[in-house]
Amino acid sequence: MYKILKTEGRAKRAQLETVHGTIQTPVFMNVGTAAAIKGAVSTEDLEGIKTQVELSNTYHLHVRPGDRIIKQLGGLHKFMSWDRPILTDSGGFQVFSLAGLRKIKEEGVYFHSHVDGRKIFMGPEESMQIQSNLGSTIAMAFDECPSSVADRQYVENSVARTARWLERCKKEMARLNAIEDTVNPKQLLFGINQGAVYDDIRIDHARRISELDCDGYALGGLAVGESHEQMYHVIEETVPYLPQDKPTYLMGVGTPANILEGVERGIDFFDCVYPTRNGRHGHLYTNHGKINLFNAKYETDARPIEEGCMCPACRRYSRAYIRHLLKAKEMLGMRLCVLHNLYFYNTMMEEIRQALDEGSFMAYKKRKLEGMQNIK
Amino acid sequence: MYKILKTEGRAKRAQLETVHGTIQTPVFMNVGTAAAIKGAVSTEDLEGIKTQVELSNTYHLHVRPGDRIIKQLGGLHKFMSWDRPILTDSGGFQVFSLAGLRKIKEEGVYFHSHVDGRKIFMGPEESMQIQSNLGSTIAMAFDECPSSVADRQYVENSVARTARWLERCKKEMARLNAIEDTVNPKQLLFGINQGAVYDDIRIDHARRISELDCDGYALGGLAVGESHEQMYHVIEETVPYLPQDKPTYLMGVGTPANILEGVERGIDFFDCVYPTRNGRHGHLYTNHGKINLFNAKYETDARPIEEGCMCPACRRYSRAYIRHLLKAKEMLGMRLCVLHNLYFYNTMMEEIRQALDEGSFMAYKKRKLEGMQNIK
Repeated sequence: MYKILKTEGRAKRAQLETVHGTIQTPVFMNVGTAAAIKGAVSTEDLEGIKTQVELSNTYHLHVRPGDRIIKQLGGLHKFMSWDRPILTDSGGFQVFSLAGLRKIKEEGVYFHSHVDGRKIFMGPEESMQIQSNLGSTIAMAFDECPSSVADRQYVENSVARTARWLERCKKEMARLNAIEDTVNPKQLLFGINQGAVYDDIRIDHARRISELDCDGYALGGLAVGESHEQMYHVIEETVPYLPQDKPTYLMGVGTPANILEGVERGIDFFDCVYPTRNGRHGHLYTNHGKINLFNAKYETDARPIEEGCMCPACRRYSRAYIRHLLKAKEMLGMRLCVLHNLYFYNTMMEEIRQALDEGSFMAYKKRKLEGMQNIK
Repeated sequence: MYKILKTEGRAKRAQLETVHGTIQTPVFMNVGTAAAIKGAVSTEDLEGIKTQVELSNTYHLHVRPGDRIIKQLGGLHKFMSWDRPILTDSGGFQVFSLAGLRKIKEEGVYFHSHVDGRKIFMGPEESMQIQSNLGSTIAMAFDECPSSVADRQYVENSVARTARWLERCKKEMARLNAIEDTVNPKQLLFGINQGAVYDDIRIDHARRISELDCDGYALGGLAVGESHEQMYHVIEETVPYLPQDKPTYLMGVGTPANILEGVERGIDFFDCVYPTRNGRHGHLYTNHGKINLFNAKYETDARPIEEGCMCPACRRYSRAYIRHLLKAKEMLGMRLCVLHNLYFYNTMMEEIRQALDEGSFMAYKKRKLEGMQNIK
């Protein structure tokens, strides 16, 4: 179901067939944490800005409204009215970054809900059960994401446990996909490679999880404090040890430049909150760099955010109007900025795929980076 | 340009031709205070929910971004990308309700901006100049809106001044419509009747302003504290003394029931923040009454807000999903609720017009009120 259509160096132009349609890669997934893209963006809006895959957060949906309620309502696709692919994370990253006091044990993690403080236990089986209730297209394995500055011994122990957890995830997902009232009997499972910035630990772990024949493999624990150069180095060293006939996913990354570098190093899937979060603050991506609409010089600027852009914001509204909305704290301002930024990312991915189709990715990458000089 | 198509008792089915298209009345104008409907609703959204007239607030736009900036950008229609009719209020009501320390003199009102505290003067001429810069389809006369509990002597003096102000408004608007670079040379001007709940003052004032041959006449100073019965009584007593060949506008009103009663008493135009404000709080209008989506019973309710409703929220999303969005403070929840409520109001006006066309308004009114028992 994963097919490489073309390569250029290590860069891959591929597609992944799923029960919710075919994903053309490289792809940028649009992050809708609580089953909604922040900024009042609806799934109807997503259909108009080239979104292929929506990403929702397992931990958030488990806590509120609850994955059982979503299953009762027919699964996440029906709940949010989105019939294209959805990827859910494992909940692990949020447990480690958001939740209160936690204890990591072999069986899983004990922690407190950030909403109401109640005690929750989540291990590989629980994460799979929650994601199965959501019925996402692609589920992510439950892992620990050690700090990029964690010491070697800690990271070694952590990735060994993450590898053991992956076996349990695989087994549990196989069981869940076979039960009678499962939401999505063809739910895919991606494993996650960890190892902080230790090449040899990353490579050992990659080899070990490759044997488990997951539907895809992610690089986790990057873009969490290490330098861009360290991140590119880890990708370069690790990707060759992941199965070549499976999609690769660089989790939580990143800037347009990060994505271009990732594609060059063989990555298929990306996701990041930058376009939504920056949009909500009036920071907008253009092919000539990033602009901040709060800047006074846009007060009477009748031009769209970017000339020629066909996003719902640029097709109708001026910089001056959107700036006014942001200054007046009108929610519409945030919405238009988020729509523009997601459209920018989704369009860049389309351009990347086209360049790969034409065998001109490296030239495209150079041109794109030169244009966006202030977006590193 | 105003044409009565049909009557039923005092109720009128009419149309008003403007440079921005023909308005079918009775009509409910959708309030977009700062050149945007609150709740991240875009003008593109408005085109999909039967909105005929958008209403913006002169005072807000004068303070931010500034009416001169809007004129420089081609006027309010171009600024917010809306080519259908726009009505702007005079700024008077906001000056009296929002602004800090103010002094009312014969020449106008001295007050402080609620945004940055700076001193502002607004009189009839200034209000017309600001509205002319905005280039709205319909401008409102600058008036004082005395409290519904103000004493008789105060109200008498106030409406006498408001009548003198209307003469100045008319003269200034005629001058502005004739200047070379005016945004909208055919800007219409509606006069405003005041008089609190004193029938005789209302009637005297109505007679006096009727002589000034405005393009329409509004009833102001209602729905500001008096009972619904007092309001209906004032409408009933006053409307016969306004020109019958001009549209009438009941400012800031109101609930669906208020509107039905207003139409019965000869009102063409309505506006109110209820559908937007209630929507942002999860309070939704349906033909079976108002519902509060925060209520726990909607947690697993897979039905749309209202069965059969064709609004953008009901066409795709369930009560359970929208409730989840509201609980999770996702802006999309507010947006969907505002879209539903505005669609409900706009659709009710369409039904009212149809009933008037068919001569069955009173039967429709009875039926509608019976269905919405809890919406008074």
